[in-house]
Amino acid sequence: MRNFDETNITTAALARISNAEDARTRAISQALVRHLHAFIREVEPTFEEWEAGVEFLTRVGHFCDDKRQEFVLLSDALGVSMLVDAINHRAEGGVTESTVLGPYHVKGAPDVPIGANISPGATGELLLVTGTVKSARGEPIADALIDVWHSDEHGLYDVQRPELANRSTMRARLRSDSHGAFRFWTIRPAPYRIPHDGPVGEMLEAQGRHPWRPAHVHFMIEKPHYRKLVTHVFIDGDPYLESDVVFGVKDSLIAELQPRRGDRDDEQPGEARPGGHWHLEYDFVLASA
Amino acid sequence: MRNFDETNITTAALARISNAEDARTRAISQALVRHLHAFIREVEPTFEEWEAGVEFLTRVGHFCDDKRQEFVLLSDALGVSMLVDAINHRAEGGVTESTVLGPYHVKGAPDVPIGANISPGATGELLLVTGTVKSARGEPIADALIDVWHSDEHGLYDVQRPELANRSTMRARLRSDSHGAFRFWTIRPAPYRIPHDGPVGEMLEAQGRHPWRPAHVHFMIEKPHYRKLVTHVFIDGDPYLESDVVFGVKDSLIAELQPRRGDRDDEQPGEARPGGHWHLEYDFVLASA
Ligand SMILES: [Fe+2]
Ligand SMILES: [Fe+2]
Repeated sequence: MRNFDETNITTAALARISNAEDARTRAISQALVRHLHAFIREVEPTFEEWEAGVEFLTRVGHFCDDKRQEFVLLSDALGVSMLVDAINHRAEGGVTESTVLGPYHVKGAPDVPIGANISPGATGELLLVTGTVKSARGEPIADALIDVWHSDEHGLYDVQRPELANRSTMRARLRSDSHGAFRFWTIRPAPYRIPHDGPVGEMLEAQGRHPWRPAHVHFMIEKPHYRKLVTHVFIDGDPYLESDVVFGVKDSLIAELQPRRGDRDDEQPGEARPGGHWHLEYDFVLASA
Repeated sequence: MRNFDETNITTAALARISNAEDARTRAISQALVRHLHAFIREVEPTFEEWEAGVEFLTRVGHFCDDKRQEFVLLSDALGVSMLVDAINHRAEGGVTESTVLGPYHVKGAPDVPIGANISPGATGELLLVTGTVKSARGEPIADALIDVWHSDEHGLYDVQRPELANRSTMRARLRSDSHGAFRFWTIRPAPYRIPHDGPVGEMLEAQGRHPWRPAHVHFMIEKPHYRKLVTHVFIDGDPYLESDVVFGVKDSLIAELQPRRGDRDDEQPGEARPGGHWHLEYDFVLASA
């Protein structure tokens, strides 16, 4: 096996991998070689372009740390994350649709009781979030683990704000009650730009794209015997609903913010703030596992 | 543009990129989306597999620094580097074949005169390298810049040996003389494993592959009005010529080591060492630019 050229290098690389012990590893590796080589054959990069690609990926890697995942951003921005999500949620009628996880989920967010304020230390317009968790047959799901996280009024997550990074604010885990209901206080999230000071930001600019996402609250809901749900609830009327940089918006995930009178724990229907709050309500339906 | 699923996400991602100002950026980005999505559609990764892919690429990035380029290794090990090389050297009859650059080239190696010892501080069997640089019409090319680098007797480059890392040994730049000839002393390189303590090493193991490369000396030769040549000269008889992990071997690049009597600057034909040296001779032919 030597003297490789355009006509035989792909076959050679596939043959080399054919000894992989694990069948799944072999299948993924061989598919990677075929599609990667097909990409190279179509694009015919110069050596300088290949170097630029290596340099780009290296910079993406160097931007990754425990607070930032630039490869997830890259996957999101290229529509790969939504494609993987779609492939893994086929034929799930009647349940809440999923969307991308995004790079801001943090494992081990604080556990809080129903009704808690999950945004200590953060400022913004007051927001009450309520809803239920149910099965596809309409049965309430009690004690579901509801992991929520969102940005602040400037579109920043706690991990993006040095003074809040170790406070775990605008993120929490709570559990649905015996009726499947949940309820928490927080602040209204804003649309935001995905981190665009790195290579993915440069890629978006070169591709003539903006880096914005419409305002949303992330939910990850888990309960034994049900499929884990990873989704967002988007806020209706947002200017970026039609052009979410990560392709995450689905009509069924958009909810209206209702203006309410009264401060926290003084909920009254009525007019908007000042002196009032917003109300976001969303009912989740989980698929059976 | 929302409500993306398997049927429309690829079209949507392509449409988003269609505004790229630069036509080449647009073409590469769109090809990337098409081939990457095709890979995902074929493999249908679970969320956990997608996460493992993100984690793998992140670790590849974190292994890259000024001494190590794990993405180049990855490109090499997947046959991508050789494919790019082949695409960029079509229809070049009668000139020296190219092969991969590899991750160990360092810019700005020491400039040395013809006849110099390029391996100060390194131990091993003495090796004399001689040859010429000519045009495809057989004319000698004087004053060509010849950048050479290779491993030591243990298969390690200077940058892999902490005590040699700042000494630039087993690498140098020299210039061909008025007859196109060059000549330098060094030590005999050994076969080596590409760095396999990182994610690429794990990939090779999972793919049932060894990480070895046959012994070789790298050459990068430049002269105005000629195409830059990036290649190796491989040592005949090496056990890994048939299974080079990066697919770099070509018959035309293999040369025999000849045993010679005498020590450095005392070249005599005859028997092998001890008290003698090896001789590697190779004549390079550059393509016109
Ligand atoms: Fe988000
Ligand atoms: Fe090498």
